[in-house]
Amino acid sequence: MSKRDFLSTADLSRRELDDLLELAARIKGKRPGQVLSGKSLGMLFFQPSLRTRVSFETAMVQLGGHCINLSSNDLYELEPQEQAVMDGRAEEHVMDAARTLSRYVDALGVRAAARVGTWEFDRQELLLRSYARYASVPVINLETNMGHPCQALADALTMRENLVSLKGRKLTLLWCNHPEPKSLGPTHSILEVAAMMGMDVTLAHPLGFEVDAEVLERSKTLARDNGGALQVVNDKDTAARGAEVLYARSWGCIKHWDDDEREAMVKRSLQDWKVDEALMAKTKDALLMHPLPVRRNVAATDGVLDGPRSVIYEQAANRTHVQKALLMQLLK
Amino acid sequence: MSKRDFLSTADLSRRELDDLLELAARIKGKRPGQVLSGKSLGMLFFQPSLRTRVSFETAMVQLGGHCINLSSNDLYELEPQEQAVMDGRAEEHVMDAARTLSRYVDALGVRAAARVGTWEFDRQELLLRSYARYASVPVINLETNMGHPCQALADALTMRENLVSLKGRKLTLLWCNHPEPKSLGPTHSILEVAAMMGMDVTLAHPLGFEVDAEVLERSKTLARDNGGALQVVNDKDTAARGAEVLYARSWGCIKHWDDDEREAMVKRSLQDWKVDEALMAKTKDALLMHPLPVRRNVAATDGVLDGPRSVIYEQAANRTHVQKALLMQLLK
Amino acid sequence: MSKRDFLSTADLSRRELDDLLELAARIKGKRPGQVLSGKSLGMLFFQPSLRTRVSFETAMVQLGGHCINLSSNDLYELEPQEQAVMDGRAEEHVMDAARTLSRYVDALGVRAAARVGTWEFDRQELLLRSYARYASVPVINLETNMGHPCQALADALTMRENLVSLKGRKLTLLWCNHPEPKSLGPTHSILEVAAMMGMDVTLAHPLGFEVDAEVLERSKTLARDNGGALQVVNDKDTAARGAEVLYARSWGCIKHWDDDEREAMVKRSLQDWKVDEALMAKTKDALLMHPLPVRRNVAATDGVLDGPRSVIYEQAANRTHVQKALLMQLLK
Repeated sequence: MSKRDFLSTADLSRRELDDLLELAARIKGKRPGQVLSGKSLGMLFFQPSLRTRVSFETAMVQLGGHCINLSSNDLYELEPQEQAVMDGRAEEHVMDAARTLSRYVDALGVRAAARVGTWEFDRQELLLRSYARYASVPVINLETNMGHPCQALADALTMRENLVSLKGRKLTLLWCNHPEPKSLGPTHSILEVAAMMGMDVTLAHPLGFEVDAEVLERSKTLARDNGGALQVVNDKDTAARGAEVLYARSWGCIKHWDDDEREAMVKRSLQDWKVDEALMAKTKDALLMHPLPVRRNVAATDGVLDGPRSVIYEQAANRTHVQKALLMQLLK
Repeated sequence: MSKRDFLSTADLSRRELDDLLELAARIKGKRPGQVLSGKSLGMLFFQPSLRTRVSFETAMVQLGGHCINLSSNDLYELEPQEQAVMDGRAEEHVMDAARTLSRYVDALGVRAAARVGTWEFDRQELLLRSYARYASVPVINLETNMGHPCQALADALTMRENLVSLKGRKLTLLWCNHPEPKSLGPTHSILEVAAMMGMDVTLAHPLGFEVDAEVLERSKTLARDNGGALQVVNDKDTAARGAEVLYARSWGCIKHWDDDEREAMVKRSLQDWKVDEALMAKTKDALLMHPLPVRRNVAATDGVLDGPRSVIYEQAANRTHVQKALLMQLLK
Repeated sequence: MSKRDFLSTADLSRRELDDLLELAARIKGKRPGQVLSGKSLGMLFFQPSLRTRVSFETAMVQLGGHCINLSSNDLYELEPQEQAVMDGRAEEHVMDAARTLSRYVDALGVRAAARVGTWEFDRQELLLRSYARYASVPVINLETNMGHPCQALADALTMRENLVSLKGRKLTLLWCNHPEPKSLGPTHSILEVAAMMGMDVTLAHPLGFEVDAEVLERSKTLARDNGGALQVVNDKDTAARGAEVLYARSWGCIKHWDDDEREAMVKRSLQDWKVDEALMAKTKDALLMHPLPVRRNVAATDGVLDGPRSVIYEQAANRTHVQKALLMQLLK
């Protein structure tokens, strides 16, 4: 019997996604009790975290379990390459860390979203996939450059709560400006989940900020298979028109993935890619979503983030609920 | 119904202070049980902590609850300014962090005692006050440059245990030398609490090490209103004479708040501002108090810190008990 | 009544060691329940940790207790010297930290394996011994340059499980190459424990990598007293011949303890001190042991580490079980 991981929204069937959201909705209203008593989740953070760290710890504690957190500050460097001759800086191989931790904890979460090499390299999620391969317990993706599936689950639950039925509803996923190059993880995951829910998705970004080609193709197929649609536009006003959900987020430039300065230069002319009241007015009274953290008054104005259609804190709150459902499925 | 914060001793009425100390004394003898079962306290440390971190975690665990700790090592930079255009280094606004964390935890503790600007700026406790403003759960001050109210509660409990009645008792709050510029937090809080208890307080420091003018005025009023007195002297021998409590601590120079080198220069001639056996001999067999950490043989000698009248570890131990009382009041 | 610490395997009598291993074996099969309910273990890590950190936290949680972890990232510098005039960088004396923490937690673990001075200085374990001296609760050595007794307990349990009786069995403790200078802690502890179990121990290392002379003498005496033997050889092939346990590990050069470059230079000609299939073939079908972390394909090849005789993950897993036994003995 093989263990189950949760590495990508692409691993979920539509049925599994629905089941997870169903369970999350059910336990949100009514605490499920100490069903994970005696169970522990180890979390490895190779980048800073606020929501993920605290929402998972809250989830485990409320289910009677326990979290053990390790951050890269507490650890030496780890080697992800197979058959490496480890005469460099890495003190331990991921395979040994994963196998060891599997003796202590019941599941492992890994945030591994560093920019290490080219996009072709980083899109392979070498570190996460190594943990998944060598751990004998379930491994959960806590964000890579390719995906942030827990965030997308919370987003889907939030949309269900606000829109009831998602099929055919118009969601615009809008690139926003940001002073730093960002992971594509949350972007890819919400794109796939919205497609899987059969939404009418518009992906809007300036030229040069294309998402991963394979993720885009898979999302198009998912949308089609589930009665939805997916189109890409490069104009934000067109994209906003008629949207029932405006999902704002910044992501990095794949073409200049290993050249931060180049990306920064490109973004200097893109400062109008920001969500403001004028843009919101073009939508069909859209819900405003953002996975946070958000650069206020750069990616979106205070006015819209704190406005009546903003559900950004509902998204954050729902992290706990979907993660409880996930943990129950993986660990019970 | 508004939530209650614990940001400053100045927020407490005398009655509330007495109630807190009463409750702390009562639960110290007899464990109150798992009264905070299922509750969690999030703690944000922007500076190192030993006592605060461990005493709060101990308090929560003994009450059946849970602590989630985030240190600045685990986090990106946060923006406290309202309406900021966030194109700098701060990755998230305090308002979003506070509102998000409020969805996960039942109370938030914040240590935010960095020297950021001038005294006029830092005395506003911008970071702490932002958390308090935006969190929907109670916020606890874990030390700022202006106050360290949890320490002062523990100090008051320690004095009550040793002196029984505090009204009219002579407490000398004595500045000591220290190689580093220090927060005024613990100084202000014990000053206010001693005044509130109606003690006969002597604040003793070299010229140039005045405390915050507003805190001093408020403390004078509090002393007067509660049957006590507050005087300031600039001579340590005068200050020690007749003291029943000698409370030693170093604090920074407000005038040179943003000029560490200048403060260091001034302190070079103040090396005799140290508590030793000779100074203790001038007191009325005073209790020796210090909030720790203490620079041994700089601020006070080993002899007095380890002497028969030292209650420094009782102060530390009482942190757990007063904080349990505080958490029960804020969270039950 | 004095508290009991666990600072070194040298503190254990043979009888005490047997009792600990007996208890560990017993609770491994059958969870002992919440016997440490309400108890907490404070852990201070002055160096990174994976196994120790997670196995102790797992052990406490499974026994119903709680861990509070402080790493040097979260703390200021601490002063271990008696009577120091603390006008330098250290913000607090170890004696104050130890006495304070003793008010909050029921036991303290300390990892203090930095290279601070000469071998003569570092072999004194100043930091660990200061905590043990000043804490009023039991102190556990989580690794110093002199010992790592918890690892040796796990190793002994692993050998018992695989070999049943240890008396007279041939164990070779083999130095391996490594790009960094390493602590002698795990080396010393397994040496003493193997000697204490009456094993026939061969310590094998290149010239210049002698272990601490006093530890070696004590180990020889222990071996003799318990019906075993201890010999030192400087040739790895001789050492491997007939071994029933091949325990591989790298350790630092005592002679060049404060000169990392010199050690690195010496090690350049020692690259054949590596465990590979050819070396294993010389043994009597030996168990392969290593305390981890291991530099794969430098200290030992993937082939032998992942081979049928490798018990490296059993060693890691047994950390939890022996530590549960230890905690029960110290805290119940």
